[in-house]
Parts: sequence; C-alpha cells; structure tokens
Amino acid sequence: MRPSDRDAVWFKCEFLQHCGVFKTRGAFNRQLAALETGEIGSAGIVVASGGNAGLAQAFVARELGIRATVFVPRAAPEVKVERIQAYRAEVRRVGAEYAEAYQAAVAFAEESGAAVAHAYDQFEVAAGAGTLGEEILEEEPSIDTIIVAVGGGGLYAGVAAAAFGRARIVAVEPHRCPTLNKAMAAEQPVDVPVSGVAADSLGARRVGAFAFAAQEAESPISVLVTDEDIVRARSWLWDEYRMPSEFGAATAYAALLSSRYVPSDGERVAVVVSGANTDPTTLATRNQPMRRES
Amino acid sequence: MRPSDRDAVWFKCEFLQHCGVFKTRGAFNRQLAALETGEIGSAGIVVASGGNAGLAQAFVARELGIRATVFVPRAAPEVKVERIQAYRAEVRRVGAEYAEAYQAAVAFAEESGAAVAHAYDQFEVAAGAGTLGEEILEEEPSIDTIIVAVGGGGLYAGVAAAAFGRARIVAVEPHRCPTLNKAMAAEQPVDVPVSGVAADSLGARRVGAFAFAAQEAESPISVLVTDEDIVRARSWLWDEYRMPSEFGAATAYAALLSSRYVPSDGERVAVVVSGANTDPTTLATRNQPMRRES
Repeated sequence: MRPSDRDAVWFKCEFLQHCGVFKTRGAFNRQLAALETGEIGSAGIVVASGGNAGLAQAFVARELGIRATVFVPRAAPEVKVERIQAYRAEVRRVGAEYAEAYQAAVAFAEESGAAVAHAYDQFEVAAGAGTLGEEILEEEPSIDTIIVAVGGGGLYAGVAAAAFGRARIVAVEPHRCPTLNKAMAAEQPVDVPVSGVAADSLGARRVGAFAFAAQEAESPISVLVTDEDIVRARSWLWDEYRMPSEFGAATAYAALLSSRYVPSDGERVAVVVSGANTDPTTLATRNQPMRRES
Repeated sequence: MRPSDRDAVWFKCEFLQHCGVFKTRGAFNRQLAALETGEIGSAGIVVASGGNAGLAQAFVARELGIRATVFVPRAAPEVKVERIQAYRAEVRRVGAEYAEAYQAAVAFAEESGAAVAHAYDQFEVAAGAGTLGEEILEEEPSIDTIIVAVGGGGLYAGVAAAAFGRARIVAVEPHRCPTLNKAMAAEQPVDVPVSGVAADSLGARRVGAFAFAAQEAESPISVLVTDEDIVRARSWLWDEYRMPSEFGAATAYAALLSSRYVPSDGERVAVVVSGANTDPTTLATRNQPMRRES
C-alpha cells in the first residue's frame, strides 16, 4: 500500500538552522532590533542560559560584531560552555541554577548598560521564533495544524501569533515539564516542578508571559507526552527520516507518534523539529531495520 | 565579520530522501518505467547490492506493490540485510563479492523473468538520480557549479545530464576509489583497486558506461580527496550544520573543505550530501566547540 496524502506529515527542519536550533531566529531578531533602537552599546548584549539560547545569542553577536556576555549556572556542561566561548562570548558561571544566573545577568545589565536578551520570554525573541510559523504557512498554505513543543513558550507564542486565524496549534509538553498545561488549568502562570529527558531544553519552571497571552488569545490543544514517548519519537525521527533531534525537539513529534494527538481525516499537519544540539551517539537506541508508519 | 554571499554554499540534503539516500530517485524511476513498459511481471524486480541501491529498490518495490529480490555478497552486513528484509524483499546471499552477486542476479532474471535494476549503471537509474540536479537548478538557477561524489557514476551521469549547458560539474572521488579519474586519463573505463573509508558506497571497481559517456559529452573537473579529507568533512557537516552523512556522502564536500577544489570569486556552488545510512555514533569524531569556515 502506498501512503496516501492523508497520512502525510510536514516537518519543519530547524535542526538545519544556524547553531542547529530555532533559537537563532529570536536571537537575530532581538539583537537586530536592539541595534536599530540604539539599545546595544559598547557593553553589548547579555543573556542567561547554559543551553541553546546562550549559544544562539553568542553566535548572532559574533555575526553582528556585538560583545556578548553569557551567564550560566555553575553546573552548566563544559561542552556547551566551550561552544559558547568558541563564538567569542564571555561566559560567567554564577549560581546553582538558572534563576540565579538570570538575576546575575540582569544585575550585570544594570551595571554595565548591556542590553538583556531573554532566553524565551521577550517580544523580539518570540516573534523571531514565530518566523518559522510564517515559513511553514508560506511554503504550504494548506497546513491546518502546527505541532510545537513548549518549554518557556517563546516558540509557541511566536508560532501561535504567526498562525493566528490560519492554523491551529497543538502545544506539546513532557508530563514532567507541564508549564503551559498547568497555567491553562490554573488560568495563570504557575511554578511547576520540572524533570525528565527533555528538561535541559524544555525545563522552564513557569510559562512565559507571551505564551500565557497567546493561549488567552486562542486556546491551543494542550497535549502531554511521557518521557518514553519522547525517546521513541527521537529514535524514530532518526531511524525513519535521518533527522537528528534533541529530546526537546522530538517532543512535538512524540504527540503524533504516540497518538496522544490524532489528526482528523484529511487534516494537514506540520511538526516542528526544533534542534539537534545533541550527542549523536544516542540518536539510535536500537540497531534495527528501518520501520515506517503504516 | 558577517559571511558574504560570496562565501555561501548550497547543500542538497539528500540524507532527507526516503531511505536516507538519493538512490531512491533512481529506484522509483527504474521501477515506474518498467511498470509502464510491462517489463515487470509477477517475478518483479531483481537487483544486486548489499548497500543503498538494494535498500532503495526494496523500499520502492514495497511502495509500488512489486516483488523484489536482492542479491548480496555473503559478507554483506547483517544490519543492511535486515533493513532490506524489513521492506519485504527476499535477500539471497551469493558469492564472496559484488561481481558474483551481480552475476547471480542476472541469472535469476533470465530464469524467472524478473526485471533487472542496476545499482547505478542503467539509464533510468542515472536519470532518476539526475532529478536532484534539476531540483538544484530549479530552486537556485544562479548556481554555477554542482559538486558530486562519484562511485560507479550514476549520480554523476544523471546530474551532468540535468545540468548540461547550465552548470559545471566537479566530480569528486576518494584517492582510493578513482574510477572516473582513471577512466578519463586512460580514455576508457578501466578497473581500479578500491579501498578506504568510502569504499562501501563509492567502491565500484570501474566507472559505468553512462558516467563515461557523460565525461565524453562534457569534461567535468575531476578532483581526488584523501580519506582524511573525507573524515574531516563528515565531522564538519555534523559539527557545523547538523547534517548526518555517510563517508561517501561527505566526499563531495571534502573537495571544498580541503581546498582541493577552490571556487572562483563569486562562483555559486551547490554540494550534494547524498545519504546518511551511517552509524550515528561515529558522526562526531571530537567533542569540541562548533567551528565554522571564515
């Protein structure tokens, strides 16, 4: 049997983005906007992140010739710190966890005059991420549904804004990082405990203001997936499609593969595979024949 | 410094093709053409290949509902045999090396009435591969140069035909698998010894008739690269661009990265990254910061 168009899925391959992750879009938008308004001076830009946001801001700063300072928690993995430094950013290790590094970044900005880039909850950062939603609908206007993973919700907020009135959003979170899901239930952002395989990229403790506003404007379909769903989806993306992905980047697809989100007949679905800054030795969990959905 | 458009390189991401490799194009073209002419009957299609060609023909046969028999040398890796079987093809292990498996496939075709698909040296197979050249020039008509790797030369022949009069071809081979290079020097196809990291996919012993005819029609720029160049290019494609590739698939880019092919000022270059049916645990040879070309 040949797969019918009904079964087709569109993938947005953000692992091919500069720095291997969609965050580069928001970082460019934030820094270019700050250059236009004169907000960026000799002290440059500052961000708190030991992960993809720090990497993307450092990359963009080098591209634009801007000084960058990146605050990371003391426990940030050396390999990510080295990559941030390779983009010529100054790395400062502060605090046991993200919140402390963030406070230090804000204090640094006040003292030095550096412009703050937020890892996700900032207008330009979310809007920059949203450009991938624009691209999906420009390239394939018939898409009914865009599936994205939610951590702090910058990507979700940007894509929801881009797709408003044109496509519905399925917002997928790990069971163990359910910031948007809990905020929707509580009708306000609430702190949640975060853990699990995707916590390194989706482990914000509270959904951002832009993401909360986006769900107020139009309620997304909120879906939770298990760590097992995520692990399986990540292996599947590699085994079937040769797409490398982080656990967080496989989370959107996990909703589809696990049937926790089931499209209607004829529904045309795009899935964001958002990044591949991952250890490739863990991509294939098994050494088995390629399979495919039937 | 921002990279200028002058330094830009276009990649054709054939690792995202069905089966993870460009061979699926030729396999579809071969089997669809054979269906049209009635050449394919109840005995289906037969191919000799323990690698990507066998995989692609098996995949396409399943998609089209055609019986497939794949002859592989006895030493073919079990993991590839299992993948071919997962596409419901019958695998027959014959002979110590490819030539014997090929002879057995031809004998099987004569006896059973199955249609033969060649791994590379067949009109429909080469023309099918050439569709990727058409796509490159359709999407980016300003491309001056297409860089492809050459094994048996099916991809090269097809792309050269597609690009004829529109773009020049740089034909890259490992030093240790120089079938086209030696044929051009000898002015006829000659057998060459083959070895090295890319021999599993580029290790044909003699260039195909279609590739030889293509270089007669218009001489390509023939470039040889070392195994070290290939290993470095493969790591670079992963580290910089998050593109997974086989050694054979990184061979085209190796010519550029090693400066064994140096584009002129303003020359617009497309590089074919032809497949990713590879062990992902070997993608990154080092655990270092991302670098980029400057």
